[in-house]
Amino acid sequence: MRVGKHMDKPRIIKELAAIVGREWVISDPDELTVYECDGMTFLEKARPDVVVLPDSTEQVVEVVKFCDREQLPFVPRGAGTGLSGGAIAVAGGVMIGLNRMNRLLEIDLANQRAVVEPGLVNIALTQAVADHGQYFAPDPASQAASSIGGNVAENAGGPHCLKYGTTTTHILGLEVVLASGEIVQFGGKTLDCPGYDLTGLFAGSEGTLGIATKVTVRLLRRPEAVKTLLASFRAMDAASEAVSQIIATGIIPSALEMMDRHIIRALEAWLRIGYPEGAGAVLLIELDGPAAEIEVHAAQIEQMCVRHGALDIRIARDEQERALLWRGRKGAVAAVGRITHEFYLQDGVVPRTRLPQVLRDVEAIAERHACVIANVFHAGDGNLHPLICFDSRREGELQRALAAGAEIMRLCLAVGGSITGEHGIGLEKIDFIPLMYSPDDLEAMRRVRAAFDRSSRCNPGKLFPAPRSCGETNISYRPHRIEREGLTQRY
Amino acid sequence: MRVGKHMDKPRIIKELAAIVGREWVISDPDELTVYECDGMTFLEKARPDVVVLPDSTEQVVEVVKFCDREQLPFVPRGAGTGLSGGAIAVAGGVMIGLNRMNRLLEIDLANQRAVVEPGLVNIALTQAVADHGQYFAPDPASQAASSIGGNVAENAGGPHCLKYGTTTTHILGLEVVLASGEIVQFGGKTLDCPGYDLTGLFAGSEGTLGIATKVTVRLLRRPEAVKTLLASFRAMDAASEAVSQIIATGIIPSALEMMDRHIIRALEAWLRIGYPEGAGAVLLIELDGPAAEIEVHAAQIEQMCVRHGALDIRIARDEQERALLWRGRKGAVAAVGRITHEFYLQDGVVPRTRLPQVLRDVEAIAERHACVIANVFHAGDGNLHPLICFDSRREGELQRALAAGAEIMRLCLAVGGSITGEHGIGLEKIDFIPLMYSPDDLEAMRRVRAAFDRSSRCNPGKLFPAPRSCGETNISYRPHRIEREGLTQRY
Repeated sequence: MRVGKHMDKPRIIKELAAIVGREWVISDPDELTVYECDGMTFLEKARPDVVVLPDSTEQVVEVVKFCDREQLPFVPRGAGTGLSGGAIAVAGGVMIGLNRMNRLLEIDLANQRAVVEPGLVNIALTQAVADHGQYFAPDPASQAASSIGGNVAENAGGPHCLKYGTTTTHILGLEVVLASGEIVQFGGKTLDCPGYDLTGLFAGSEGTLGIATKVTVRLLRRPEAVKTLLASFRAMDAASEAVSQIIATGIIPSALEMMDRHIIRALEAWLRIGYPEGAGAVLLIELDGPAAEIEVHAAQIEQMCVRHGALDIRIARDEQERALLWRGRKGAVAAVGRITHEFYLQDGVVPRTRLPQVLRDVEAIAERHACVIANVFHAGDGNLHPLICFDSRREGELQRALAAGAEIMRLCLAVGGSITGEHGIGLEKIDFIPLMYSPDDLEAMRRVRAAFDRSSRCNPGKLFPAPRSCGETNISYRPHRIEREGLTQRY
Repeated sequence: MRVGKHMDKPRIIKELAAIVGREWVISDPDELTVYECDGMTFLEKARPDVVVLPDSTEQVVEVVKFCDREQLPFVPRGAGTGLSGGAIAVAGGVMIGLNRMNRLLEIDLANQRAVVEPGLVNIALTQAVADHGQYFAPDPASQAASSIGGNVAENAGGPHCLKYGTTTTHILGLEVVLASGEIVQFGGKTLDCPGYDLTGLFAGSEGTLGIATKVTVRLLRRPEAVKTLLASFRAMDAASEAVSQIIATGIIPSALEMMDRHIIRALEAWLRIGYPEGAGAVLLIELDGPAAEIEVHAAQIEQMCVRHGALDIRIARDEQERALLWRGRKGAVAAVGRITHEFYLQDGVVPRTRLPQVLRDVEAIAERHACVIANVFHAGDGNLHPLICFDSRREGELQRALAAGAEIMRLCLAVGGSITGEHGIGLEKIDFIPLMYSPDDLEAMRRVRAAFDRSSRCNPGKLFPAPRSCGETNISYRPHRIEREGLTQRY
């Protein structure tokens, strides 16, 4: 279906230019390099044949209808910060970049609603309503760059979704252009619109059901007060026991993050945060809500950390100190980038109560595959982010990293968890989703996809593996794409 | 497709009996009377040809496969407490009652999860985990009778969903038997499972996508403290302004309910609650959370109510007094039942900020149609429940009540709301959903339905009207079914 092979590319460019304007069509191979991958850069890259940057729903409709007529695949793309390869044009075709559609269309402060275009950067929405004491809750690490449309596609999470829920919780309505070019409205401004919850279905559908061109979101009011604590422990076990106890008391911190000794060491070497000597685990705990409430909870949490042998507990006294405590957490992934040539950032979920055991098992996996696995994660909701370090220039390291990643996924499933918490399946985990769902379960999802896009031209090759052929009867772990195809791109 | 007309009913009964046992097949016309409607009793009734009461997923599968072979429609039914006619067998066929499948299969207190069968009564789950300080949050008025499967089908709400969300928020996974008899798993025990959120899609699908045979739910921990206030006002306006201000400060009460003068009068005449003389509106406000927090919030709310001219504010001092304050609210609908021959319980949603205006408009609608409309509703989330009083024995009253109901729905839509908050579309609002969604929007929903049930044999005739014929181009209000067909059944 690639444009170049069987079709008249100049004509296609000309027709697309007639819709969006010549300057918003990119077809030069060098310029297309920017679009050959998203935030997942080490497994597979693929150039779209052409990129278009529409400026309105009407232009999106025309582009999509053009793709329909020409039977071309298309891939919607926001800011390209996704971590599972969801925005990679594996089948070539037309990439539809939504960055120009970044308007804030409507703000209704009294009812805490906003309507935005998909290209609006996450943080820009919060900035626009900050003076009125409101904000948009989803806060993925990418929030300064990622677009709200992309957040919807991946159902993005973030440290504060422990208390406030992932993106799906904050999206009430969508205007969607289907693969046929039809415009449909899902949901609306009220919670729980009648009929099927297609807004919820679309959130996390990873660009496979159509292109959202308007997003109606819920805004939250800034809490009265925020309190941020940093507790250091000698070892992960004690820190995870503290996490379990905090949650067991019924306190729901707005964030509850953990970092292990590898992260601590990397951060100290870089930012000199000043973690205590001998700290093998750090908890960053944030509470928000009425001042009266968080005072009480902070004191309880402090006691619990002490009881679990905390070496040190720091409480931010002001916004500046709070920023400092977060600086380590926010710099954690970058810090690991300084100590390894490449890393494979995994994303799995385990029941909170299994955290201590799972963390020990991850350590055993690291030993078995002779690699360093650094852990920084959303401990409160059991969402692990192991950073598996490797250097693809050294024979076998990438393969070992991938094997370790696969073992971590199977470990998560074995304890009743999930292979992804917030990064999505995309390309990265497409061979693993059959470990989580039966062929019938996946078939139900495929049928839903077909209900929106019969010919699978909207972001093909994502989310589900191709249906099994009749002869193939066992679902078992298959060597990952990269091992099969020997791709070894630089991270 | 009715069994009786073209088919060999004795054979069908025999084959169904072979699956579930003879005593669990009901075909006697008198016994079937119980199954001719659900909680919506005044618009339309219809007897299924046969009712089966399976005891296991396997039996459900066999019954559904049998329906597939015989091309019979089937209707899943929980406790039959639904208010929009979702469980009425309008096309006849087989009704599949899930009441025997009421087991609590698994409780995981540490991770706050439970797995239940669909027939388990809502309150029974809370009772089972109450000693451990946990509960199942959705609390529809029917919770002592309604089943969790039915709550899922209707995405049931309740007074406390203002803070805790409707049923969909509390459902993580489902085992579903599709119309083909296939068993599929949606979601799981972790939040935000990858792939399409079919659990969320199924919640609120009103029995049209299949039969849930296992439900994985989230349990919440009982809050540390609860505080319940009753504030009386001279008029609705002042009370709704108080509601707006409470919400605007960022406080989210766990419940925020309003009752108008009709309800107050009816309750006084019956239960002698002791509302102050001259009260034209009452707010029931409940706060829950850490004791420290709710003390502060209760004081703020008290001040706000005083500022808006509250005649009287009562704060429950203990559980007994709390129960007393709730007694009025919980008895409100029954109290209205004592002062009118019949009533039509509406369910609409408006943006909170439009409440004062909308309540005045509802009053004008009542005057215009010369009927009493009593209002008891979830003010905090703008979910109205007008009770339109009528006596179908008197010429024209039912028609006027239905016309008033239709006007209220259009009023809700005109201010940017929804035609149903928690009761669903079912049969009752099937002619009104086109006022809310365009033909293309409805077509998208129909395609999703077809993805699960190509021949629409699973609860046919619900949720969407039949697709319009080509000649019909305007979506406009059509006289309601009852007016067309002249049904005047006793409520």
